[in-house]
Amino acid sequence: MSATTHPADCQSFGDRCLSDEELQRLLREDCPYGDLTTTLLEIGAKPGRMTFATRHETVLCCTEEAARLLELLGCTVTALQPSGTLLPAGRKFLVVEGEAGRLHLGWKTALNLLEAASGIATRTHALVAEARAASPAIEVVATRKVFPGTKAVAIKAVYAGDGLPHRLGLSESVLVFAQHTVFLKSTQALWARLPEMKRRAKEKKIGVEVTDRDSALAAAHAAADLIQIDKMNPEELLELVPLLREAAPQAVVAAAGGINDKNAREYAQAGVDLLVTSAMYWGKPADIAVSMEALTV
Amino acid sequence: MSATTHPADCQSFGDRCLSDEELQRLLREDCPYGDLTTTLLEIGAKPGRMTFATRHETVLCCTEEAARLLELLGCTVTALQPSGTLLPAGRKFLVVEGEAGRLHLGWKTALNLLEAASGIATRTHALVAEARAASPAIEVVATRKVFPGTKAVAIKAVYAGDGLPHRLGLSESVLVFAQHTVFLKSTQALWARLPEMKRRAKEKKIGVEVTDRDSALAAAHAAADLIQIDKMNPEELLELVPLLREAAPQAVVAAAGGINDKNAREYAQAGVDLLVTSAMYWGKPADIAVSMEALTV
Amino acid sequence: MSATTHPADCQSFGDRCLSDEELQRLLREDCPYGDLTTTLLEIGAKPGRMTFATRHETVLCCTEEAARLLELLGCTVTALQPSGTLLPAGRKFLVVEGEAGRLHLGWKTALNLLEAASGIATRTHALVAEARAASPAIEVVATRKVFPGTKAVAIKAVYAGDGLPHRLGLSESVLVFAQHTVFLKSTQALWARLPEMKRRAKEKKIGVEVTDRDSALAAAHAAADLIQIDKMNPEELLELVPLLREAAPQAVVAAAGGINDKNAREYAQAGVDLLVTSAMYWGKPADIAVSMEALTV
Amino acid sequence: MSATTHPADCQSFGDRCLSDEELQRLLREDCPYGDLTTTLLEIGAKPGRMTFATRHETVLCCTEEAARLLELLGCTVTALQPSGTLLPAGRKFLVVEGEAGRLHLGWKTALNLLEAASGIATRTHALVAEARAASPAIEVVATRKVFPGTKAVAIKAVYAGDGLPHRLGLSESVLVFAQHTVFLKSTQALWARLPEMKRRAKEKKIGVEVTDRDSALAAAHAAADLIQIDKMNPEELLELVPLLREAAPQAVVAAAGGINDKNAREYAQAGVDLLVTSAMYWGKPADIAVSMEALTV
Amino acid sequence: MSATTHPADCQSFGDRCLSDEELQRLLREDCPYGDLTTTLLEIGAKPGRMTFATRHETVLCCTEEAARLLELLGCTVTALQPSGTLLPAGRKFLVVEGEAGRLHLGWKTALNLLEAASGIATRTHALVAEARAASPAIEVVATRKVFPGTKAVAIKAVYAGDGLPHRLGLSESVLVFAQHTVFLKSTQALWARLPEMKRRAKEKKIGVEVTDRDSALAAAHAAADLIQIDKMNPEELLELVPLLREAAPQAVVAAAGGINDKNAREYAQAGVDLLVTSAMYWGKPADIAVSMEALTV
Amino acid sequence: MSATTHPADCQSFGDRCLSDEELQRLLREDCPYGDLTTTLLEIGAKPGRMTFATRHETVLCCTEEAARLLELLGCTVTALQPSGTLLPAGRKFLVVEGEAGRLHLGWKTALNLLEAASGIATRTHALVAEARAASPAIEVVATRKVFPGTKAVAIKAVYAGDGLPHRLGLSESVLVFAQHTVFLKSTQALWARLPEMKRRAKEKKIGVEVTDRDSALAAAHAAADLIQIDKMNPEELLELVPLLREAAPQAVVAAAGGINDKNAREYAQAGVDLLVTSAMYWGKPADIAVSMEALTV
Repeated sequence: MSATTHPADCQSFGDRCLSDEELQRLLREDCPYGDLTTTLLEIGAKPGRMTFATRHETVLCCTEEAARLLELLGCTVTALQPSGTLLPAGRKFLVVEGEAGRLHLGWKTALNLLEAASGIATRTHALVAEARAASPAIEVVATRKVFPGTKAVAIKAVYAGDGLPHRLGLSESVLVFAQHTVFLKSTQALWARLPEMKRRAKEKKIGVEVTDRDSALAAAHAAADLIQIDKMNPEELLELVPLLREAAPQAVVAAAGGINDKNAREYAQAGVDLLVTSAMYWGKPADIAVSMEALTV
Repeated sequence: MSATTHPADCQSFGDRCLSDEELQRLLREDCPYGDLTTTLLEIGAKPGRMTFATRHETVLCCTEEAARLLELLGCTVTALQPSGTLLPAGRKFLVVEGEAGRLHLGWKTALNLLEAASGIATRTHALVAEARAASPAIEVVATRKVFPGTKAVAIKAVYAGDGLPHRLGLSESVLVFAQHTVFLKSTQALWARLPEMKRRAKEKKIGVEVTDRDSALAAAHAAADLIQIDKMNPEELLELVPLLREAAPQAVVAAAGGINDKNAREYAQAGVDLLVTSAMYWGKPADIAVSMEALTV
Repeated sequence: MSATTHPADCQSFGDRCLSDEELQRLLREDCPYGDLTTTLLEIGAKPGRMTFATRHETVLCCTEEAARLLELLGCTVTALQPSGTLLPAGRKFLVVEGEAGRLHLGWKTALNLLEAASGIATRTHALVAEARAASPAIEVVATRKVFPGTKAVAIKAVYAGDGLPHRLGLSESVLVFAQHTVFLKSTQALWARLPEMKRRAKEKKIGVEVTDRDSALAAAHAAADLIQIDKMNPEELLELVPLLREAAPQAVVAAAGGINDKNAREYAQAGVDLLVTSAMYWGKPADIAVSMEALTV
Repeated sequence: MSATTHPADCQSFGDRCLSDEELQRLLREDCPYGDLTTTLLEIGAKPGRMTFATRHETVLCCTEEAARLLELLGCTVTALQPSGTLLPAGRKFLVVEGEAGRLHLGWKTALNLLEAASGIATRTHALVAEARAASPAIEVVATRKVFPGTKAVAIKAVYAGDGLPHRLGLSESVLVFAQHTVFLKSTQALWARLPEMKRRAKEKKIGVEVTDRDSALAAAHAAADLIQIDKMNPEELLELVPLLREAAPQAVVAAAGGINDKNAREYAQAGVDLLVTSAMYWGKPADIAVSMEALTV
Repeated sequence: MSATTHPADCQSFGDRCLSDEELQRLLREDCPYGDLTTTLLEIGAKPGRMTFATRHETVLCCTEEAARLLELLGCTVTALQPSGTLLPAGRKFLVVEGEAGRLHLGWKTALNLLEAASGIATRTHALVAEARAASPAIEVVATRKVFPGTKAVAIKAVYAGDGLPHRLGLSESVLVFAQHTVFLKSTQALWARLPEMKRRAKEKKIGVEVTDRDSALAAAHAAADLIQIDKMNPEELLELVPLLREAAPQAVVAAAGGINDKNAREYAQAGVDLLVTSAMYWGKPADIAVSMEALTV
Repeated sequence: MSATTHPADCQSFGDRCLSDEELQRLLREDCPYGDLTTTLLEIGAKPGRMTFATRHETVLCCTEEAARLLELLGCTVTALQPSGTLLPAGRKFLVVEGEAGRLHLGWKTALNLLEAASGIATRTHALVAEARAASPAIEVVATRKVFPGTKAVAIKAVYAGDGLPHRLGLSESVLVFAQHTVFLKSTQALWARLPEMKRRAKEKKIGVEVTDRDSALAAAHAAADLIQIDKMNPEELLELVPLLREAAPQAVVAAAGGINDKNAREYAQAGVDLLVTSAMYWGKPADIAVSMEALTV
């Protein structure tokens, strides 16, 4: 097993997906006006070391952000594994030194970030592994159904786990849902409109979501670039895909709706090009151990 | 079953936990530069109605925020159930009307918010129900282990589900962990220091987290106001609690670490005052149906 | 000539591309601490009317934002033409009433916004008209070379002028430049890598920018989805395009580099599918007249 | 005594100096995650009325902001006196109605803002009254020594109390201090440089701060537009001013340094044009009474 | 007298209460578009040194923030005393070197911050000293009546002066005022409700503010954890406290309302546990001398 | 020709006009969720060098901001020319080294900023050169008609090109337009009011904009400090200026309206003190070459 599943090194801020300002907003969220416990204990100035280690097999994510957060507090990072690293249980991956007051200021915020992001990365990795076990060229793409406000972390974690984002939002891709078609005269009107949409948005693949066999075939005949089939079971899909390949050899066929690590392999076996899912976003955070030790000066 | 589990009507911005600016930041996250699909379909100006309904028993949360988000887009809210309402499956709770372009701009962002928040509220409600089935006066309090950046929504959802927040952060409460004690000369030094901490922070209850029986009893003898027992199993706890009550009748006793809807009742039976957990934060979002229909002008 | 070139009604915030907060930041930029002139003149409370009108043929843009900005100041909008409206010279399109102090607070900020945005929209409209005169199915797409910080306004204006955005940024599209290839072993290595890139990013069209005939043909043979030809003159392009069509009938062919309203028609005649340009962003703002009149109470 | 000392109606956001976003930031500062007391009391939904009234003679300031803050919470404003109004003790000036939970959310934040701003306005008013008692044409101008982060409120309050701002910052005015001259070869070098400074910054008055008679006269001879005399006592100033008038009839002469409501009259008698002071910024907040009453539905 | 009254080393951002972004916002508030004076003098590039020194006995606060602000401008800090240090008059505590243009950019903003914060810290220190002279175990706690927008600085300053914050806001503590009780059926209803409030908010001390002897005793009998007595004079308080101790030995008794450095000792003698006051927030800023000198290259 | 036209070294943030946060907002605008192209090419970690060079004679601006932006991404700046440097075509002025992924993240954003700002600086320089060729003591001042949201960059560029800002906004200067006068009883009322305005705003020069000879002379007789003459042609101006000098020797006379690099010399010859223009803001960005090369490790 490769130690690194994905480099994830082209993030928005170099190797990070959160700016200093965003990290400091997270710090303030947890500690708006000083740390009362550490202050009352009068341990703030004592030197210490804080170590983060895996408790399970984990694809790391947001180690760079956690490290930077602790640097912003005045700590020194002495060891760091990059996002995308796959580690077995029990491995140290982030070690920082600094005054006890500073370590405690960052502890939980860094941990929460690492656990949330690594949880998504690890689940993405599992989904990809399941899908590729059945279909090596398949891609698992993550929907935009993130917890509102967490998109930068979520997408970095998807990359770290070797997935890719599906749509990033409404401005950069075209995907027609039934909720759009309801405003047309008929579904037929959509097929009639596709050529004009393709003419205008020449740089984009035009996608259509369908939920049944007839619509899927209609989309194929109408030359949709992406046919996204929602909530169809793997068996039906297995029958449908060859028909779509015949009708539209160039079209990308995607399965969506309820895909998770239990059924990803089965969906992959149905022969689709893409699995579209939000399953990686939701689940338990990665379990990460933190130990703290006092250093003698 | 009462229709409303908790009023949740004293949020930071009236009945909302997110300001207009925060809602607009979420909109921009999904649609930074216009909706390409709706624009290409030329359906933007057509009048429509969008309806949100439960698919399962759900404690609603962030309906006010979703409604406001759609109002900010120029839509009109025609029906709305407040956060904290417990609904069975299949009930409509938010209906908005407006131009198709505006409905589509807000659809997924509103839905993601509703599903994430209602998921937390519903899980909180289940945890509370489990715990109170065994111990009617018990409280379930939610930790600060939220997905970084989601605290306002998460805490509103905890209230909506009839839980309460544990600590909101480092600035407003005192809770001593082993990670603090490591910077003292010994655990004994902590007990020796408690009186001074209590003297200074007279308006606060001084809490100590312990992981074994001896420390718990030491904390009780040292007059800690809150004894938080981490990762002890319910059987051990059942034995320990009476000893603590005897040693420190005024102390609040809390169980923490791995508490979830499967074991909450058992922990409650152990006689503690509080269950401290993050289990409500993590899990699948509530499943909410959205339907869209065209209106004739 | 149709009065409206493009509805532009699916912007990020309903019909607007700027949130209230962003509009108030613009106001503060111009008036951080009160209007000294109006205060010294003691005219602040007098009722008035402010009227915006075209001085030339203009495609309007950001009228909704200007109107909202003035509403935020407490003025009342009594007439408003939407973004995307093409008006001849001398037409009123925005009328607001309010106290003189409020009108003066918003005057220049609203005007600057209207003139900057309508300038881009009008130039986009001219580019599209030129290009379509030669090639009715062609699209003019606007690059990401905006004045940093003005992207939301610039892209809305492109839509208002009947153009479309090219790439919105690095996260949502794939376009390989020579500046990327320099990090591969050779240009040949890029062609060898294309299939893997297409396999991974199945929902995207993979674009390559080339600057000469041989590279363009190599891109076509390598099955690039988008071949963007930079800084080639129209004559050479006219010869090249049929060869590309033969080699890669499905590929989208775009011309880029130095395209403007003087040469757009000629480039369009060369038979390309797309003109990629920043010419609409740079040039004089639209010239808009503002008149102010006192109202009797 | 006129009821209104200054209209203050040309503020940055119409009649307000704080945007909605800024008001909501203040609310969040006080109530980040719901109001625990009101929630536990279960009084949130009860209708009520909150009334603000003066306890002393007060020049009101930020009533518009306080009212807006309460509106943002969903309350209804039923009575409001504008900023700049001078009221005797015991007068109601702001009345709002709404649910008890919403009134309590805004109570202290609105009150703190009103008391801080009205304190500055009332002290400004007193300073102006003192100065004008001796010299009717004199102006009291407020320095930029505000509590960092409070400038918008502070400057609005200065206007409300009939003062004017001195400099708003470094970008818009020219004032040479000894701390600048130390980087020139000599003080003489400053006088030699003044003509060039006046040539370049033709739209500005060039000011020089001096601390003794000789420098003041040198500044006058060098044609400084503004001679600001720091920390000279009124007696010396009384002697110096006529000499300055003779040397430079057009120059504005200002006294600065330690001017307050005790000595403002004396300084004014010294014949200067301006009193430059920060005395209005620092002192007790205005004392404002708030009463709350329950309404029957 | 100890040189340091309080370490204040566990602030939100390590040793600082303001993030880089917040410091840069303060800089922009004073200098949005370049320093006109320094530019016209053409002294910007000359090397210099700026020294801050006390003019009176002062408890320093926000030296770390002032130093960082100057570092952000490109200056080098060569000497720095931490927040919480008590210095006699005439002591240098912050020395920075850099180009004259950069020193001047930061001079007043750094100074305003230091003076405002050190003023609060010094007054807090005086209040604590007065109170402890009479009652060594007493605490002085600072209310939330800060100048809106200055809370982070104000609370750091309270810590620096050896006080503690009272409530940080509405979300983290429970304090019932008469303004709450008005929404209950009667005051009696409050006492009846206390047990339920204590049951729910087990981790909090439940506080009640009262203004007379009978209510105070009622609160004690109702087992309120904190009895806050508002605006009672020290003599009455002296009589009341023993009765409260008898009725409720565990209750914390606080005096509030009009407490300042003149009467703090007297209030402390009345035997209360806490003095609750805003007196430290309001008053003159600390007087700090700044000297600037040119350095030879 | 001097290599540096203006030091521009007293910007808001030291040598920069944009804070780290603002630079990171620009980065996020272009790359919200990772760079898809570089990721798919798997070149992110390869070391490289990026070089920026002029293609024409250029006054550089925002090199400091571009360099900082690339530093924030983790790149190392190895060569840098300051803002205000005048370079001939073909000169390198900014060289950075770093991983390919980081260079590509910053490439276009840095370039867009450099080109937009240097375009303004170069045009300002040309305007000043033209004007001073005719009138060596004249100043070219830039209006507030910037593209909304770009003021900090625009004003830095004006300084870099040896111009000065005219008004920075409404709060810091007094300039009466016809749009103000309409709220007075008559133009005459303005002249009657001027003395009171001058009395109050003693530190400011009071400006009046006029559009014809009679009003200009009226303004001179009324002792306006600044007479701004809008849209008068140079010939008329040449006649008018001596009359104004006679009527008001101290008044500053400015020409405004339609002044650009074609007519600046002619306007300067008319004898005015100031040219007020927005011509520098609008036009093509500077053309800057970027080359990228791979480095061997």
